[in-house]
Order: sequence, then C-alpha cells, then structure tokens
Amino acid sequence: MARIRRSEKTREALLEQGINLLSEHGYHGTGLKLILDTVKVPKGSFYNYFPSKEHFVSEILDTYAANLLLQFDEYLTTTQDDPLLIVQKVYGSMISVFEAEGCLKGCLLGNMAAEIGAHSELCRVSMQKTLAAWKKRIVVVFENAQSQGIFRDDVSAEALADVFWCTWEGGILRMKIDGDTKVLRHSLDCVLTTLFAKDKV
Amino acid sequence: MARIRRSEKTREALLEQGINLLSEHGYHGTGLKLILDTVKVPKGSFYNYFPSKEHFVSEILDTYAANLLLQFDEYLTTTQDDPLLIVQKVYGSMISVFEAEGCLKGCLLGNMAAEIGAHSELCRVSMQKTLAAWKKRIVVVFENAQSQGIFRDDVSAEALADVFWCTWEGGILRMKIDGDTKVLRHSLDCVLTTLFAKDKV
Repeated sequence: MARIRRSEKTREALLEQGINLLSEHGYHGTGLKLILDTVKVPKGSFYNYFPSKEHFVSEILDTYAANLLLQFDEYLTTTQDDPLLIVQKVYGSMISVFEAEGCLKGCLLGNMAAEIGAHSELCRVSMQKTLAAWKKRIVVVFENAQSQGIFRDDVSAEALADVFWCTWEGGILRMKIDGDTKVLRHSLDCVLTTLFAKDKV
Repeated sequence: MARIRRSEKTREALLEQGINLLSEHGYHGTGLKLILDTVKVPKGSFYNYFPSKEHFVSEILDTYAANLLLQFDEYLTTTQDDPLLIVQKVYGSMISVFEAEGCLKGCLLGNMAAEIGAHSELCRVSMQKTLAAWKKRIVVVFENAQSQGIFRDDVSAEALADVFWCTWEGGILRMKIDGDTKVLRHSLDCVLTTLFAKDKV
C-alpha cells in the first residue's frame, strides 16, 4: 500500500516537473534525464511509469489542461463579474505569471503544437481534447457577453472564440520574440474591448 | 575562383535545406547530421561555413525572411489590387502552400519563436529584425485600407498589424493541432473582412 502511494507520488512529481521543463525547453530540448534527475528517479525506472516519452508528454498535456480548466471552472462558479471582466481577469493573471517567469515559458499547449503538433498523433489527440474542453467553456462566456450587449453578435461566439485563441497563442509567440508582454497585452485588449465590442450606435 | 563559387553554392544549399528541415522538425528535432547528409557535406566541414548551429539558424531565419519579403515587395510594386485583396491573396497563397505540404510545416519564424525564442539571443535578434521589416510593409497596406474606407480607423494600423500577426501565427498552431487549415482560414477571414472592417453606417 505504502509502495503504491510512493509510486503514485513519483508519477505525479514527474508530470509536474515535466510541465515546468517542457514549457521552457520544449519537447526535444527537454531530455528525460533532466526530468528524472530533478525528481531524483533512477533513469531505468522511467518506463515503470510511462511507456514512452510521447505517452509521458501526452499525459503532461492532459494534466496541464485539467489543472487550468479546474481553476477556470472554480472561478466561473463563484464570480459575479460580467463576462468581459471574467476573460480579462483570467487571461490577465496568466500574463502576470508569464512575466513573473521572465517571459520564458508561455503556454505548454502552444509550444507543443509548434514543435510536435504535426508529428505526434498521440499528443495531437490530447491537444484536440483540451481545445474542445476549453472552447466549450469560453463559448458560454462569449455567448453571455453577446446576450448582455457587450460583444458584437454579427459573428458567432464560436468564431470569436477561435480568433481569441489564435490571438492569445500568437501573442505568446510575440512575447518570446520581444522578451516582454507588451504586444500580447495590447492585442488581447484590442480584440476584447474594441474588435469584439458591440457597436454603441 | 571555382573553389569559392563551389563553397558559396554549398553554403546556400545548407541554408535552403535548413529552412526545409527546421520548418518541419524544429530546432532540437533537426540534427546537423541530417542537413549535412541531405546536402552531401562531410560532417567535419560544417564549421567552415558557420561558427555554430545557433549562428546557422539565425542566418536561416534571415534568409527565410528575406525571400518572403522580396516576394511581397515584388507583388506590391506590380499589383493593382486594393489593400484588402493584397493581404487576402498573399496570405491565402501561403495557406495553400501549407496545405500542399500536408499542414506539417507552417511558419519558420513562429516555430523558432515557440521553441528557442526565449533562449537564443542571436536568433531572437534575427526574429525581431524580420518582424520589424514585415511590419513596416504591412502597416502601409493597412493604412491604405484605412484611407480607402475598407478598414476601421478607430484603431491604429500598427495595432491592427499586431493583432493580424498574432491571429496568423496562432492560426498556424491550430492548423498543426487540427491537421487542417479550416480555423486558420476562417479566423483570418473573420479578422480581415469583419472585425477590421469599417462600419458601413
């Protein structure tokens, strides 16, 4: 029993460190040895936990997404904020985290999409599931913004959600090129408060 | 003299193959050996051409950008199309190239930004120069669209250009996750023809 608990703890620690290291160094840039050393797991025993690096990364993507979506859900069920403010707070706080990390990491999903999206079917399926789960939530928030007259309604909430995701992920790439979050912040703000805004006529 | 010409030709071939392979496999995923084998250059002689892999990739980024900007400039000086059509044709044709390549490659600049943007100062400078050169051109096109009443003018052409770039690069990440260009095409179209459009009131 104690052995099972220890094994589960190690597995969780590997996933947690995996999120950290992959976010910064990418798929090919993060050797398994580095992750195993950080968690103090002997190299040979990695395959007791995961069948391959690809399976490991696919599970990291699932864990990363589950954590973020859980935070999002908790916030959604307790907040009294209007839909625009919800999106501004959630994404503003993620940008603050990026800044605190020196603009080095960004979004694990976007990083993995750029590097291995086209090549790992297993990871691609994880990313598609994550995107679908995220979109289900954000579309509801955007629909609320439309019905409250905050967002324009000549474009579907789904199409706005796609543009929003693209702007967000592209903005993170700009952050990595510029070394700061200026364009990411401005572009997100421009999209949410001007381009998506319901005309005040 | 013949020796110099041969050497220059090899250098160009290395850069060209570098663009191809890095676009698909990324920085860490593309071993120098693979590029050298493809161009049939002995491994030991790589450093006669470039001081390091990082320098090589920085020069690849410069070459890639110079080629694209040259094509863009040639098109701009000869076309009679209105500004919106110019952007639609240029980016539409890039999407067609992505499709022909099986949605595997995408934009080298975006790929490198995701993978090594935060870590290679040398490549980051190349990317910043490329972005600045691209933005100088696209802002003129967007300003023309504004003065012709096609694009809204309550947001600066520069801010619209930033949102456009982010949507484009984020859309390419979606292409890699989805394995098709549907969201990339729709989001770009939504931005250009609806969100950026001058209100017809």
